[in-house]
Amino acid sequence: MDIDLPEVVAEVKAAFDKYEKALVSNDVDTLDALFRDDPRTIRYGATEILYGYAEIAAFRAARSPVALGRTISRTVITTYGREFATASTLYERPSAPGKIGRQMQTWVKFPEGWRVVAAHVSLMDKLAI
Amino acid sequence: MDIDLPEVVAEVKAAFDKYEKALVSNDVDTLDALFRDDPRTIRYGATEILYGYAEIAAFRAARSPVALGRTISRTVITTYGREFATASTLYERPSAPGKIGRQMQTWVKFPEGWRVVAAHVSLMDKLAI
Repeated sequence: MDIDLPEVVAEVKAAFDKYEKALVSNDVDTLDALFRDDPRTIRYGATEILYGYAEIAAFRAARSPVALGRTISRTVITTYGREFATASTLYERPSAPGKIGRQMQTWVKFPEGWRVVAAHVSLMDKLAI
Repeated sequence: MDIDLPEVVAEVKAAFDKYEKALVSNDVDTLDALFRDDPRTIRYGATEILYGYAEIAAFRAARSPVALGRTISRTVITTYGREFATASTLYERPSAPGKIGRQMQTWVKFPEGWRVVAAHVSLMDKLAI
């Protein structure tokens, strides 16, 4: 298995960047489009436990669009072969001082493009680091 | 891409179960063996941010072996092709009443077997659900 083929990493990075841009601008259509529409898609959020695309989409639709700006750091995208990848990043929000966020996504390439099939977001106290 | 081929799901479930058993019994050798020994392996823990296998192994070695018992629920293992899988589960510990844990792992099959390449564990208040 080829790990981190440059052209594959570039594809996933483009998808990751698109997701990040959609997240901070609350572009719900794009956020929805980048998660795989399947009952097996799972998202554990900062305060949510969402099983299946329908629950994830309902959460997106109801999400407050306020104070979504954030700064990411220590982003690592690793690809395995040509169809699988993980993307991990830390983030901080001015609206959540003293906290550090962790976002981890598993991406799979389908005929329709790269999609997130599993994601987990959580916050921890900076002091705990 | 074949999703959830029964024989592949069975392989990952065996690895997942082995990991769970090692976790609650603090079998550090097995825990270490099931994470991929690579600088790109990442584990975001309940109170840890660990980049690379060395940091993860150091954390395992220093972990308190007290009160590790837990009950898991809503476990979903999904396989994509024959070499890639995600495993997500909720858990509760008697030592952490009022909290619900979320564990998400990405598994990849290497010549040496199935290994976790990315994992994220976090706790949230049950009341937030």
